Amino acid sequence: MRLVVIGGVAAGMSAAARARRCDPSLDIQVLEKGGSVAWGACGLPYYVEGQVTSLDQLVRYTPEYFRRERDIDVRTGAEVTAISHCRREVSLANGERIPYDRLVIATGARPTRSGIDGAGQPHVFTLGSMGDAHRLKAFLSDRKPQRAAVIGAGYLGLEMTEVLRTHGAEVTVFEASEGVLGRQDAALTALVREHLARFRVELRTLERVGRVGESAVNGVPCDIVLLAAGWQPNVELAADAGIEIGRTGAIRVSERMETNLGGVFAAGDCAETVHLVTGKPEYMPLGTTANKMGRVAGANAAGRRERLAGVAGTMIVRVCGLGIAVTGLSECQARRNSLDAVSAAIDGISKPRYFFGTPARVELVAERRSGRLLGGSVIGEDGVKGRIDVIAAAVSSRMRLDEFEQLDLAYAPPFAPVWDPLLIAAQQLRKLV
Amino acid sequence: MRLVVIGGVAAGMSAAARARRCDPSLDIQVLEKGGSVAWGACGLPYYVEGQVTSLDQLVRYTPEYFRRERDIDVRTGAEVTAISHCRREVSLANGERIPYDRLVIATGARPTRSGIDGAGQPHVFTLGSMGDAHRLKAFLSDRKPQRAAVIGAGYLGLEMTEVLRTHGAEVTVFEASEGVLGRQDAALTALVREHLARFRVELRTLERVGRVGESAVNGVPCDIVLLAAGWQPNVELAADAGIEIGRTGAIRVSERMETNLGGVFAAGDCAETVHLVTGKPEYMPLGTTANKMGRVAGANAAGRRERLAGVAGTMIVRVCGLGIAVTGLSECQARRNSLDAVSAAIDGISKPRYFFGTPARVELVAERRSGRLLGGSVIGEDGVKGRIDVIAAAVSSRMRLDEFEQLDLAYAPPFAPVWDPLLIAAQQLRKLV
Repeated sequence: MRLVVIGGVAAGMSAAARARRCDPSLDIQVLEKGGSVAWGACGLPYYVEGQVTSLDQLVRYTPEYFRRERDIDVRTGAEVTAISHCRREVSLANGERIPYDRLVIATGARPTRSGIDGAGQPHVFTLGSMGDAHRLKAFLSDRKPQRAAVIGAGYLGLEMTEVLRTHGAEVTVFEASEGVLGRQDAALTALVREHLARFRVELRTLERVGRVGESAVNGVPCDIVLLAAGWQPNVELAADAGIEIGRTGAIRVSERMETNLGGVFAAGDCAETVHLVTGKPEYMPLGTTANKMGRVAGANAAGRRERLAGVAGTMIVRVCGLGIAVTGLSECQARRNSLDAVSAAIDGISKPRYFFGTPARVELVAERRSGRLLGGSVIGEDGVKGRIDVIAAAVSSRMRLDEFEQLDLAYAPPFAPVWDPLLIAAQQLRKLV
Repeated sequence: MRLVVIGGVAAGMSAAARARRCDPSLDIQVLEKGGSVAWGACGLPYYVEGQVTSLDQLVRYTPEYFRRERDIDVRTGAEVTAISHCRREVSLANGERIPYDRLVIATGARPTRSGIDGAGQPHVFTLGSMGDAHRLKAFLSDRKPQRAAVIGAGYLGLEMTEVLRTHGAEVTVFEASEGVLGRQDAALTALVREHLARFRVELRTLERVGRVGESAVNGVPCDIVLLAAGWQPNVELAADAGIEIGRTGAIRVSERMETNLGGVFAAGDCAETVHLVTGKPEYMPLGTTANKMGRVAGANAAGRRERLAGVAGTMIVRVCGLGIAVTGLSECQARRNSLDAVSAAIDGISKPRYFFGTPARVELVAERRSGRLLGGSVIGEDGVKGRIDVIAAAVSSRMRLDEFEQLDLAYAPPFAPVWDPLLIAAQQLRKLV
């Protein structure tokens, strides 16, 4: 039995590694177009920032490691140009044909450039590959731009705002939608805007950029532009092979990560996943999701029966020292999904003041009738990840607010206040359900 | 309708405040034996350490605040000597009698001294009151003890070990049971022992102390002794009034916090609570639990119908820079409760190394047949609270390991590795269930 995996970054290598664990006898080959596998794209902003000193630090395992330790044949520089499912084979750019019994498609995504004129100019950058990061870092060092435009206030746009500030540029962030992190949350967006303003960063929402000029974007002068307007799934190979594409534009998969073609799986940034709260397919290209999808695809490709229940849409970013995290649905998103949602936000502290606690804002969203938790957000300088993870766990297990309010969260003065901000927020919200 | 609350620290003030919110017309009186109310006993070690510079910092609200803002009559220096439930009144030490319709008993606990001879000597301290903290701090400043014995490796013993080290004393910790934090966990105890040894602290388990000598404990020289061998619930007042005491020695209450006497509630360190995993009554005197019990007692005393489902037994301590946290059951505790438990521990990192991630050890315990998560522990220098809280939430919602493994936890390089140590531990443990 022969498994071929197209793409060797997050989902692809997770699939290959998991398939190997599930079936030691499987013949596994990974075909990666680029020069490296198993590298962490999420670290790219921090390479540009300088915290990561070499791109090698982002590579977790080499092809040799997989060959030697996992008996997985990894080929880099191997670009698949076609999938012929009736022949059960893929074609490479060099004309070679490689047969498969099972196939995992993990072709990833590329930065969206569509709808933006002038994206090809030398001062306009995206950040989807090591090459992008390398070029951007060199430009920042050589040209020392003073005014930057970031297009998109999703996680990459926000992370890169911090990076560009670190390099000394003033930044204007343009976001076409009404809010940050695709969240449609006016209060969250206002807080982020206020925080950014202190760092000489202007956040402009509901402002679409249709064209990047030579020295300005929407009238704001700039000498560098970062395009972070979202991701476009690499689905052309799959679509050409007759694989169904979902409404989101990404490959449609079952909860087993199987496409409409039996034995052909898709995982990671090229595929859809189900939102745990809405139950609907969504396109959420994130490293953690990609890895989980890859694991499930790999297990099923190796003959197991595993499923991915879905994802809660958890995201966290650091921007100018502030941690911003969201999970599940915002109140607005919930309403748009026909849920009768209520929300409450509180301003607490991360720890007692005598342990240098800092402001911690927690917002929770629940369904009014059932009291079921639908989502939330956490903003602060410390303890943000821990608190959003608790909300994510609660959302995933369909916890009700009255249950959440009584969670036995850890308390000791060096770590938290006696009433955790999460619990205070739950108490507030309970008054509304 | 008149509510009397005996005791005004954590549970008592939570009960009074919640009762007020539930019923604005209620006549509420709090009788506190000591001189302050609503103060945080959990901060006492950090007052002795010096992080908290004044005991006033531990007082969250004054009696005046409650009188003015909440219309709650708070009397300090008011010691209740008897409860006469047939007359619906309590007697004070000064002979005064105070009538009630509903009563909340929140008399707290005192440090255990029983079974230890020589506990009355001037170099032997406990830490249950502001007075204790004040005396201990003065002794440390004046006498500068060089060798300390800590009796008990529960949370207070471990916290005080760090405090005594900060004051320059070498410390020997004596623990009668087989492990730290009452956990019966050999691996956890070994790790804590190893960590403490690096700080010139010796942890001796399975070593009972029956007698404190003038200058030695169990043959180990010492010039200061801290008794942290547990807490004894203050139940005498309740017992004398015919209120049922549970097997644990604390006041037995329903999930509504009601005692066997109708309209009489008990909450906090004087009462039992139910362990969420075993479903059995336990005695777990902790500040967070006390506050939650108080809230439920207050709501019910004011005519609502609320319940406390139970607690997961979550604890966190910092000792010599290391965070140690537990929740639910250890494998050994699970077995003693006739659960077929398995556990797995992994050594991960808190964040990517390029963001100065530190070692993070996560252990999970699950029931073999059902895969249900029973508990876990987390040890590390950062991210400990957040991770134990996720386990606590999962244990509380009876999550299975296959669900836990797919939790959509927040990831970005400044906060966490792409595979959170929690998820790696779950993957490991799934191989055993």
